[in-house]
Amino acid sequence: MPIAVRTAQTVWEGSLASGSGTVTGATDALGTLPVTWAARTEQPGGKTSPEELAAAAHSSCFSMALSLALGEHKLTPTKLTVEAAVTLDEVDGVPTVVSSAITVNGEVPGTDAASFQGIVDEAAGICPISRLFAGANITVSATLQG
Amino acid sequence: MPIAVRTAQTVWEGSLASGSGTVTGATDALGTLPVTWAARTEQPGGKTSPEELAAAAHSSCFSMALSLALGEHKLTPTKLTVEAAVTLDEVDGVPTVVSSAITVNGEVPGTDAASFQGIVDEAAGICPISRLFAGANITVSATLQG
Repeated sequence: MPIAVRTAQTVWEGSLASGSGTVTGATDALGTLPVTWAARTEQPGGKTSPEELAAAAHSSCFSMALSLALGEHKLTPTKLTVEAAVTLDEVDGVPTVVSSAITVNGEVPGTDAASFQGIVDEAAGICPISRLFAGANITVSATLQG
Repeated sequence: MPIAVRTAQTVWEGSLASGSGTVTGATDALGTLPVTWAARTEQPGGKTSPEELAAAAHSSCFSMALSLALGEHKLTPTKLTVEAAVTLDEVDGVPTVVSSAITVNGEVPGTDAASFQGIVDEAAGICPISRLFAGANITVSATLQG
């Protein structure tokens, strides 16, 4: 049996340019999220997009991976702030997710910047979503507070 | 300039086992989503997870890719229902996103099951999130209504 299977559904009506969709997740935590091609590629206007959802997946997963890696070094983070910036760009004429850039800001008692950087690198190696995103360039930048 | 850059942030406090996080996206569409390791790997209890967010990214992107591919064949979908099921499993002792299974149900006037299947295959090839998820096994199953 796998660790977890999580599902989400999109209902889309109409053409790409003038149609629209709604995204829901099986847990109900996401509510009902409207999506359109225009909101995805121009001004979002308060709408989410596949790239924002991918960024949310990546940042949440990376924060857990880093928390795990810190624990393996007997460290407990007071606070980790993890941003993911996912970029959609045209490659050979085809829209492509080219990168996900992770920026970490950590408040972690009992470590120093160099050790923290090493542990962030370990987290980058184990994060399941980083490995899922094998089609993109993943970068990680980390800062330790105080 | 890229087509779009979308960001999301997770703030995590504490250890992996007993800590917790909150996920927000820059558009505000997602609200503030609580996440924990227990909710990710045991019963979700109304909480989202990286895998559900990845499923939401995949299903929404696939629906747009399919709408585009249909348009290239002069077809406009009345309704596409696209589910993604993302599986987290242990591989060599490491939690890994092993697969994302797409299930499509289409209401598309003017086509037949065989043509629809061919267009779904085209969509699978162009969907940016399918290509992003190069680390996982992507499967696509499609049914045409009526």
